[in-house]
Amino acid sequence: MAKVFDAAEVAKHNTADSCWVVLYGKVYDVTNFLPEHPGGKKIILKLAGKDATEEYDPVHPPGILEENLSPEDFLGTIDEASLPQSEAVAEDTSKDSDAPPPLGLLMNLDEIEEEATKRISKKAWAYYFSASDDLRSKSFNGLVYQKILLRPRVFVDCTSCDLSTNFLGHKVGVPFFVAPAAMARLAHPDGEQGIAKACARFGAMQIVSNNASMTPEQIVEGAAPGQVFGWQLYVQNQRDKSEAMLKRINAMRDHYKFITLTLDAPVPGKRELDEKSNFDFSDTSPASGEATEAKGGVGQQLFFGTAADLTWKTTLPWLAEHTDLPIVLKGLQTHEDVYLATKYPQVKAVILSNHGGRALDTAPPAIHTLLEIRKYCPEVLTRLEVYVDGGIKRGTDIVKALCLGATGVGIGRGALYGLGVGGQAGVERVLEILEGETSTCLRLLGVKSISELGPRLINARSVERDIYDGDPGLERRGLWSRSKL
Amino acid sequence: MAKVFDAAEVAKHNTADSCWVVLYGKVYDVTNFLPEHPGGKKIILKLAGKDATEEYDPVHPPGILEENLSPEDFLGTIDEASLPQSEAVAEDTSKDSDAPPPLGLLMNLDEIEEEATKRISKKAWAYYFSASDDLRSKSFNGLVYQKILLRPRVFVDCTSCDLSTNFLGHKVGVPFFVAPAAMARLAHPDGEQGIAKACARFGAMQIVSNNASMTPEQIVEGAAPGQVFGWQLYVQNQRDKSEAMLKRINAMRDHYKFITLTLDAPVPGKRELDEKSNFDFSDTSPASGEATEAKGGVGQQLFFGTAADLTWKTTLPWLAEHTDLPIVLKGLQTHEDVYLATKYPQVKAVILSNHGGRALDTAPPAIHTLLEIRKYCPEVLTRLEVYVDGGIKRGTDIVKALCLGATGVGIGRGALYGLGVGGQAGVERVLEILEGETSTCLRLLGVKSISELGPRLINARSVERDIYDGDPGLERRGLWSRSKL
Amino acid sequence: MAKVFDAAEVAKHNTADSCWVVLYGKVYDVTNFLPEHPGGKKIILKLAGKDATEEYDPVHPPGILEENLSPEDFLGTIDEASLPQSEAVAEDTSKDSDAPPPLGLLMNLDEIEEEATKRISKKAWAYYFSASDDLRSKSFNGLVYQKILLRPRVFVDCTSCDLSTNFLGHKVGVPFFVAPAAMARLAHPDGEQGIAKACARFGAMQIVSNNASMTPEQIVEGAAPGQVFGWQLYVQNQRDKSEAMLKRINAMRDHYKFITLTLDAPVPGKRELDEKSNFDFSDTSPASGEATEAKGGVGQQLFFGTAADLTWKTTLPWLAEHTDLPIVLKGLQTHEDVYLATKYPQVKAVILSNHGGRALDTAPPAIHTLLEIRKYCPEVLTRLEVYVDGGIKRGTDIVKALCLGATGVGIGRGALYGLGVGGQAGVERVLEILEGETSTCLRLLGVKSISELGPRLINARSVERDIYDGDPGLERRGLWSRSKL
Amino acid sequence: MAKVFDAAEVAKHNTADSCWVVLYGKVYDVTNFLPEHPGGKKIILKLAGKDATEEYDPVHPPGILEENLSPEDFLGTIDEASLPQSEAVAEDTSKDSDAPPPLGLLMNLDEIEEEATKRISKKAWAYYFSASDDLRSKSFNGLVYQKILLRPRVFVDCTSCDLSTNFLGHKVGVPFFVAPAAMARLAHPDGEQGIAKACARFGAMQIVSNNASMTPEQIVEGAAPGQVFGWQLYVQNQRDKSEAMLKRINAMRDHYKFITLTLDAPVPGKRELDEKSNFDFSDTSPASGEATEAKGGVGQQLFFGTAADLTWKTTLPWLAEHTDLPIVLKGLQTHEDVYLATKYPQVKAVILSNHGGRALDTAPPAIHTLLEIRKYCPEVLTRLEVYVDGGIKRGTDIVKALCLGATGVGIGRGALYGLGVGGQAGVERVLEILEGETSTCLRLLGVKSISELGPRLINARSVERDIYDGDPGLERRGLWSRSKL
Repeated sequence: MAKVFDAAEVAKHNTADSCWVVLYGKVYDVTNFLPEHPGGKKIILKLAGKDATEEYDPVHPPGILEENLSPEDFLGTIDEASLPQSEAVAEDTSKDSDAPPPLGLLMNLDEIEEEATKRISKKAWAYYFSASDDLRSKSFNGLVYQKILLRPRVFVDCTSCDLSTNFLGHKVGVPFFVAPAAMARLAHPDGEQGIAKACARFGAMQIVSNNASMTPEQIVEGAAPGQVFGWQLYVQNQRDKSEAMLKRINAMRDHYKFITLTLDAPVPGKRELDEKSNFDFSDTSPASGEATEAKGGVGQQLFFGTAADLTWKTTLPWLAEHTDLPIVLKGLQTHEDVYLATKYPQVKAVILSNHGGRALDTAPPAIHTLLEIRKYCPEVLTRLEVYVDGGIKRGTDIVKALCLGATGVGIGRGALYGLGVGGQAGVERVLEILEGETSTCLRLLGVKSISELGPRLINARSVERDIYDGDPGLERRGLWSRSKL
Repeated sequence: MAKVFDAAEVAKHNTADSCWVVLYGKVYDVTNFLPEHPGGKKIILKLAGKDATEEYDPVHPPGILEENLSPEDFLGTIDEASLPQSEAVAEDTSKDSDAPPPLGLLMNLDEIEEEATKRISKKAWAYYFSASDDLRSKSFNGLVYQKILLRPRVFVDCTSCDLSTNFLGHKVGVPFFVAPAAMARLAHPDGEQGIAKACARFGAMQIVSNNASMTPEQIVEGAAPGQVFGWQLYVQNQRDKSEAMLKRINAMRDHYKFITLTLDAPVPGKRELDEKSNFDFSDTSPASGEATEAKGGVGQQLFFGTAADLTWKTTLPWLAEHTDLPIVLKGLQTHEDVYLATKYPQVKAVILSNHGGRALDTAPPAIHTLLEIRKYCPEVLTRLEVYVDGGIKRGTDIVKALCLGATGVGIGRGALYGLGVGGQAGVERVLEILEGETSTCLRLLGVKSISELGPRLINARSVERDIYDGDPGLERRGLWSRSKL
Repeated sequence: MAKVFDAAEVAKHNTADSCWVVLYGKVYDVTNFLPEHPGGKKIILKLAGKDATEEYDPVHPPGILEENLSPEDFLGTIDEASLPQSEAVAEDTSKDSDAPPPLGLLMNLDEIEEEATKRISKKAWAYYFSASDDLRSKSFNGLVYQKILLRPRVFVDCTSCDLSTNFLGHKVGVPFFVAPAAMARLAHPDGEQGIAKACARFGAMQIVSNNASMTPEQIVEGAAPGQVFGWQLYVQNQRDKSEAMLKRINAMRDHYKFITLTLDAPVPGKRELDEKSNFDFSDTSPASGEATEAKGGVGQQLFFGTAADLTWKTTLPWLAEHTDLPIVLKGLQTHEDVYLATKYPQVKAVILSNHGGRALDTAPPAIHTLLEIRKYCPEVLTRLEVYVDGGIKRGTDIVKALCLGATGVGIGRGALYGLGVGGQAGVERVLEILEGETSTCLRLLGVKSISELGPRLINARSVERDIYDGDPGLERRGLWSRSKL
Repeated sequence: MAKVFDAAEVAKHNTADSCWVVLYGKVYDVTNFLPEHPGGKKIILKLAGKDATEEYDPVHPPGILEENLSPEDFLGTIDEASLPQSEAVAEDTSKDSDAPPPLGLLMNLDEIEEEATKRISKKAWAYYFSASDDLRSKSFNGLVYQKILLRPRVFVDCTSCDLSTNFLGHKVGVPFFVAPAAMARLAHPDGEQGIAKACARFGAMQIVSNNASMTPEQIVEGAAPGQVFGWQLYVQNQRDKSEAMLKRINAMRDHYKFITLTLDAPVPGKRELDEKSNFDFSDTSPASGEATEAKGGVGQQLFFGTAADLTWKTTLPWLAEHTDLPIVLKGLQTHEDVYLATKYPQVKAVILSNHGGRALDTAPPAIHTLLEIRKYCPEVLTRLEVYVDGGIKRGTDIVKALCLGATGVGIGRGALYGLGVGGQAGVERVLEILEGETSTCLRLLGVKSISELGPRLINARSVERDIYDGDPGLERRGLWSRSKL
């Protein structure tokens, strides 16, 4: 029989020497775990001696606790009545969460974002909204679509229009998918499973984040027949953890059709907004040295333990040992790397991405990389499927990427904001908007199906002139060739 | 003798099972008509059991009622005294309509729009002002003119200046015309006939919208000798309705000199502003599915029943069976389609248009298409008359389009805003402003007549570099040729 | 002995049938002159029966009254005591004219303009500030200088720096001059003579406007030895008036060294701000027809009687008959016209100008025309002196124009705003600022004198790519050649 | 024994005929020094008869007083009690200097600047913030980095990352350095020595300004072993003063490794903000002549006595006579001058700079000059080390310059603002931010060390098209060649 603790007793253990926390009504001694915590010990110490459930729950999937603590760290249960009433909750959660969300009135993804901003916690908003440094790549991601014009053909029968297409041999209902985005339960308790259920309605693919706030098993629970999922891998320094996870995914190959290996963020970008929203103001000291340690946005915490030593030569073979699922490389940003990807047969697709502007600021929008490919090595489009993400707000954006040769287009923040507005129904509204806009765009272009889209239907000239032009100095001197990649 | 109904009696018939409405003092049973209503049954049900005249009148031409209802649907007349005083009217109509409009003080089309915005109902404003998605094409339409510079020649006698020109063999007084724009009576009771009378004063051509709020017969009533009209056709799914209308137009060939077939909007664009202004807020529910059905801007309603299956091969022959008037194709947006148009002898002209930015957002401005033609197939300018519309605000804009080879330039919103400001007199003010500005521009360019205008009088270089450049990949591989159009 | 009138008596003659006005204490009957008044009869009728001196004085040079009225129109003098106290004056003149202007604190031409805006009447401000249509050319004029970069050379001795140069063989102290600008006394009683005296201090050239508010004789009164003036001619429909004026100028050839013939404004541009500031609001009527007549900014009034029938072939020979002073053509805006000017030996220089953006909106900045010349016919720079004006705000702007081959650079509004701030001293401050900035720019470029300036000291590439590129269609087909100019 | 004066006695000597001032408790007669004061006599006369220590101290290094006054000018000491309480101090110093600066919360250089603006005096802010004319070069300096995109390579092991590099053969810890910036004690009493101590922590190089507010000896006091300094020389008209200073620097060659000769500011730029902040409003008079004399920002004062007659041929040999330290030329802005620098063996490096936008407005950003070099004479990059400064705000900016071939990147205002925020600790925070951002950028680019950076890692195309393109006219006519440089 577990021992029952009084809150006052727990409160005494609030230092690094003896650190207890209450989670889901249970009392744990996490003193030994402090140095191993991915988010750093500081964030735990702030909650030492207290009930940490409110802070812990939305950012940790079930099972993580058991995985990381020894049985003896479980001390007993808390006497709930002895806990103080939580007021922090009221302050830092949804501002209007009681009023039902006016989904029908939200007509586009900007309005979805605006409504979500009102409804989700400041911390969640800061994590979702933030991007690196000055948010220039995030901003470019959107602007580049606005600079591409469409070229509608007329006098074409467009009574019917079919948005279905194939991703890696699997039929999907729409040419856009939900890109991996971490911590969905920060936005809404429906979490990643809510996204999955919304996707089911539209036949939309979903790539599940390595840092999902639900287990991969939970997320695909009750998935529709034929519903397509991918699973995103951040390789851990402790490779055995990654290997164990790959084993779980391999076992669910009915749902998870491929592994997405994210490459554009071997170290975290500098997301100042996210870091600030988690800054412990009481710690501030004039000594600049300490300020560094105080860093710790949600993004930073998630990176803890992620391997920075991946390479073409070592990582892909290791991966081959642990899964025979197709590999999709995510975060490629140059035609050189896309070209290199074609050399590895297990790689079936790439996702051009600058991580939503969250990795390296002023990294190129995916459309730039796609245009680079068209310019330097268009043949890769026949060998690999090429996906893009970042900055998609409209059906016309989706169509423009498809015209340039993308197989599919990922939606990241949009899905999370939809979740924030209304859980599963909010994500459905987002997908419905994009489906409607994409369909209207195809019909007004005079196109009946995804396969008819091509570069003659767009005018990307004002973007093309900004595409990387090689190193003229090298070329002039005959020093440049494909083999130098 | 028609039966007289009491308002209370009519009010009982307010459901889809028995739906009565009062129009112009008469009581109709529209229960059977509900599923056929172009604007959807919802909009009628909101008025079920009530006097619908205020809502009905400005958006329906006379005769439509009789055309769609059976004689037995007419039940009798209403006892006017029994009707409640309409308060809705006061709320949603002209805000300052009593003060006489200061026409002389409105010096340009922007000021006309500003004044109209104060005077017309919010619903009318939302319908006229709105464009698709993010209004980018609407904005491009205007910006592209600003980027073109003029090249005035000096030391040329410009005491006289003649703005007259020829449209399809008909003499007109000015090189601009009123483009087809629906629902003029939303702006002012003078409606399309008011526009016609204003045009008469300037010898300006008018193309009458398929969705005019007056009958084509009314509009040309009292037209000036030689006054030129065109008639715009949206082909209906029920072809016999279109055929009947063509018959009426054929009969008025003294006035209607050609048929304009609009091609750029086979399905409606997403005009969010218009849709929102008609949104029934009482219907809002969190279920996203229903939100879709609630859609219904004026634009959406007008599209009901419009055919989306038009093609070069089937539609033009059908049209030839029902009229021998010249055909003008409206809404061409690529040089490829303009080139195709030259293959059909009954097509005498094209109107380059992106539907005022109301169809597909980020579709190119007409000036882009015109520059594409000059680049890829300039010879079509000798085979077809090419008109443009969209974004015209100034006489200099008109002159720039003419210099690039346009035969004439259409004004859409400008005429409607003029109507909103002061009915016929307001439209006259708009035409007077444009006539004055165009004339000043010609004289300051050192040009005496429209026929002297040409590309040497403008510098469009900063636009030219953004023009579609073909698919370099295709060209490089020798896969592109004219025959692939 | 002149009769003395009572104000009440004069006040009775306030109609077109009998129109009296008081000017400088004298009573005139201007009934017969009404239809001949360059500014239209309306503006006089507003003052009929009243003392018009306040309105008349700043916009008419002395002698004009006598020139236009018959001796019998002079009726007598007014009993000053009987006139009402003028309150209008207080309302519509300088707002802070009593406080001495803080000239030393005004550090650049923008600050001069800002201060002048506070000090001059709204009417004067509207006339000076206004430009055509949407003020785009006015805005381009300034922007184009900002887009040109300087290329400073270092390690050059720049202890001394000489700004003097030659204009048409006459030595001047600075490479900028005061461009012809009308109605200086609207800004300050010092008027054009105040500008002349300020120019004397800097050895700056002044071109006197055809519409100066002082006589050409007054303006050069007390000029410094060697001070250089030009006189601007707007040819009148009544050629004898122009001929008489040329005779007066010829007689002052010690001061007036050339005739500037303005060509870019054969008809007035549409300066809406100026027109509005003079609009008679009491006249407003809904009938659009009348609105046209109500037009009448200062600019419009000045154009009355100006000839619009000038041509290369007829005007230059006529001019040769009436003066042997060198001719400077002002308002050339294309390389074609500059090239044509080289064919007429009496033309010694041209001024590239779009009339400060006041003639045709979206006409090119002078720098565009200068770059066109460099591109198409650089040899004209060796045959003619080429001046520019429009948009100059800084010494760096002046230097950039000189580097591109301009002989001198005109300042229009800047001088008038200086006058508005502090009369002659204000103009001196403007010239002092520009002299200082130009000198600093030369020294930081590593240049000792004006003659060393050249294109290698600037980078105009971002402007060059917007320069007119000919009509590619014509060139492609071999239809274009110099002889087609 | 020094005589003790009463403040009232000193106060009588407040004219140019007899001018006494109190400095650090001592009374001096500066009457004879008045005409020699670098900042002009006016600024001293404003303090005549008063205690000038507050104004004098932060802008003069120790020893200057003794160097310029004769022993007999020292009259005695002041009776401190007789001096009035200084109130001016309270008004014009740090607004929040008591609250400890929240260094850890300041996450980037913009936030550092914002905080400094609140903490330093208006005068100091105006001096640091100001740039010439309209601040366009200052603005371009930053914008040009934003227009360059990065090209991150993926699948590269980036667990370690080394920022160390070599400057002129000396190992430094980071590829950025503190550029020479005058008057550090205006920001904080730690002054240039505080900067030096901060640099020690990061192994960062510091170039000490000729106009430092501490002596070169003080600044290197307690420097770390191997810490690298450069010394900036503004050659004085009185060459012997410069020669004496060079002698002092030669003697400290353990610390000062080279002489930086600044060339881009032979005369001061027009820094209006700085001039205004020092303007004596009581002097304002309407006579424009006097206003000129009232000029006197901190920048203007510092220029007093600086030689404007430097040349390649005379100055370098003179310099060779007085030092054998390597010479670094600062302020080169054209490829021509960089090319010329390679002809002088004592010149080992150049710093491309437009003086932070403080010399000639619209001078090119250093990145333009670097791209010019790559275009016209890339070989100089192998002969000279090329440094850049101006506009650096982010680690990504630093990396972009390095990719284009820069050896190192200078930080000017950033270090001063850091100093203003928190003295030495503030500068450390600035360097820490840049070190962190640079390291993150390298790792996300897939690069382990500075030497791996190169042009293939960036896309500067949108800047390249604005680079100087030669004088096409000259080239076309065969008149241009390298020998004409």
